[in-house]
Amino acid sequence: MKLITFLSDFGLNSSYVSQMKGVALSITDIKIIDISHEITPHNIREGAFVLRASIPFFPVGSVHVAVVDPGVGTERRGIVITTPSQILVGPDNGLLIPAARYLGDFTIYEITNTKLMLNSVSNTFHGRDIFSPIAAHILNGVLFEHIGPIITDFVDLDFGNFEITDNSVMGKIVYIDGFGNIITNIDGLKLRNVLDFDKKVTIFIGKRKLQTQFVKSYNFVKKSEMLATIGSSNLFEIAINQGNAAKKLGVKPDDDIKILFS
Amino acid sequence: MKLITFLSDFGLNSSYVSQMKGVALSITDIKIIDISHEITPHNIREGAFVLRASIPFFPVGSVHVAVVDPGVGTERRGIVITTPSQILVGPDNGLLIPAARYLGDFTIYEITNTKLMLNSVSNTFHGRDIFSPIAAHILNGVLFEHIGPIITDFVDLDFGNFEITDNSVMGKIVYIDGFGNIITNIDGLKLRNVLDFDKKVTIFIGKRKLQTQFVKSYNFVKKSEMLATIGSSNLFEIAINQGNAAKKLGVKPDDDIKILFS
Amino acid sequence: MKLITFLSDFGLNSSYVSQMKGVALSITDIKIIDISHEITPHNIREGAFVLRASIPFFPVGSVHVAVVDPGVGTERRGIVITTPSQILVGPDNGLLIPAARYLGDFTIYEITNTKLMLNSVSNTFHGRDIFSPIAAHILNGVLFEHIGPIITDFVDLDFGNFEITDNSVMGKIVYIDGFGNIITNIDGLKLRNVLDFDKKVTIFIGKRKLQTQFVKSYNFVKKSEMLATIGSSNLFEIAINQGNAAKKLGVKPDDDIKILFS
Repeated sequence: MKLITFLSDFGLNSSYVSQMKGVALSITDIKIIDISHEITPHNIREGAFVLRASIPFFPVGSVHVAVVDPGVGTERRGIVITTPSQILVGPDNGLLIPAARYLGDFTIYEITNTKLMLNSVSNTFHGRDIFSPIAAHILNGVLFEHIGPIITDFVDLDFGNFEITDNSVMGKIVYIDGFGNIITNIDGLKLRNVLDFDKKVTIFIGKRKLQTQFVKSYNFVKKSEMLATIGSSNLFEIAINQGNAAKKLGVKPDDDIKILFS
Repeated sequence: MKLITFLSDFGLNSSYVSQMKGVALSITDIKIIDISHEITPHNIREGAFVLRASIPFFPVGSVHVAVVDPGVGTERRGIVITTPSQILVGPDNGLLIPAARYLGDFTIYEITNTKLMLNSVSNTFHGRDIFSPIAAHILNGVLFEHIGPIITDFVDLDFGNFEITDNSVMGKIVYIDGFGNIITNIDGLKLRNVLDFDKKVTIFIGKRKLQTQFVKSYNFVKKSEMLATIGSSNLFEIAINQGNAAKKLGVKPDDDIKILFS
Repeated sequence: MKLITFLSDFGLNSSYVSQMKGVALSITDIKIIDISHEITPHNIREGAFVLRASIPFFPVGSVHVAVVDPGVGTERRGIVITTPSQILVGPDNGLLIPAARYLGDFTIYEITNTKLMLNSVSNTFHGRDIFSPIAAHILNGVLFEHIGPIITDFVDLDFGNFEITDNSVMGKIVYIDGFGNIITNIDGLKLRNVLDFDKKVTIFIGKRKLQTQFVKSYNFVKKSEMLATIGSSNLFEIAINQGNAAKKLGVKPDDDIKILFS
């Protein structure tokens, strides 16, 4: 199975996403899966989070093309990242790094071989003209050495640190999902070492302070009630059962969060 | 052809939809089609309607995974429904039932075999951890007896009754589509037995009363004019030619509707 | 590879898009790619632009089904257009014509053979009942002569003329993309003959006059600054670096644009 996934901030109303797919399909017969094309325009961190959250579930050998690329057309480099199991293609702006780190030891190749690009490369759309054809050529067996030189001075990106003590956790909001669930950078397994389900917690988030319960799943509180839980990506999150917590609390990614318990 | 369709209320901006697809593709090489991921969050009836409207057009052997699942993580069961032609997988909350009923005699299996699930099942995302892998294993030929026991006490759901007399019809709004067309639960073929095209009708909907015409298609009235017709799912609907009837009338699913004619 | 693309104004929240796909998959095993389903409802020109922008990147032999169809159910004809490389299927309302013209010499067949349609053709959804099955039958090798008669009196559509002089260009806005970039009908290559990158330009657009720079790519001005460039479809466009130019300027498709330079 030759599988390419696509992630971008292009939206689905324009022709851009389909142009990338058409280019890859013109090179080789592949299966295509969309991760998301509704990343907030130019928001590299959000794109990096969604990509990182998706890739654990894809088969070995998958090639992921990700394009959130405010630096397109400048000296910003294009890169291919090889890992023990999957391959990432996109701009050298941090977008691919959290996913690469999750996948294990990685090697980064700068894309310099113009023979692997579209004949005419635009200044504004490297997703179509460079990244998508490179992904298709990789699935056709091109040697990574032929893509370009190995680099080590890549642009890094992470989701910040979190601190767990015996009675508190401090971290950051990293993502708001489509339900309005507020997802943080706090590792769920580590949190479980110091905090049991069904305990009451006090949360400081944005300018608010709220009392809520740390529960196993959304439905362990009544409908429309606030709760804290560990979400499906094993991250601490704040939600409202069948409601929109982010809208209610007026918070956004990068806001600090502090949780107290006893 | 191994075909899985997906329907959910996840939206397309997060990683959730792609996680379900990655899981299925990691088990077997399948073709994937999206029905919709823009069901109103937690709206089981809306999901049930969209699923029911889609499945008549899919090939024999298709497996449909549907996830509108406000009860995830509680005692709510997961089920597989077999029918004479297609297979349905999802939560036991009514979501799958109108589609199952359309497809004919059906049998419901509770999903209990943990060997067919992801290794680690989260409390908040059974679409990824249970329903998607089950669908892939079904396409790989797993025996339905190995999924779990047959149950008969499933959660039921229907779109309500409608009444047709010689000069009136009473029913309910079941869905508003992307054009703002107002779709009811009133069967078009049965309505045609008592009402001919090009007749004038009086409609009571929400708090409004309106006079309009029952026509063959949107274009049989002038642009921006209200009309009544039989839509592509053979249901009575109210529309505005090239306009948004639901917005204009301020109605919503579950509102009653009464049509008078002479 | 049997490839069908779909473009429509149906949106992604309803069952309509999946119904079209299910119908095609019930006829033959095909690969399916979405161009877009978020065309503004009933906006034929916008659909024609997005289709025309996509098709240069698809493989020879692709079949494109496009449905922006306010005239469905009337005398409006359905057509298949053959070109030297790809095939177009949809309503005879101009939607397919700019794409057909780009692809070269084309021939138009009116769809009249009811054997190639669904058994029961609705009055409101020819995308599902006529265009999608026709596309599948074409990929199965049906002879074009069996679709229906050749016609020459098709409904035409173009994106208007533009005029380039030694110190000015006049044209029209044809499209606003998901970033808010304002795309015009002015050919980029021809413009480059009279205007060099890094020149200052004066632009009259809507009721506004603005001074900006004609640059190679978005990033050649500071963040949040206005710019003019040649976009990825080789058309002159106005943008804001990492911002939304259309929202800021309050312009829309079909507005006139005039560019002065010296």
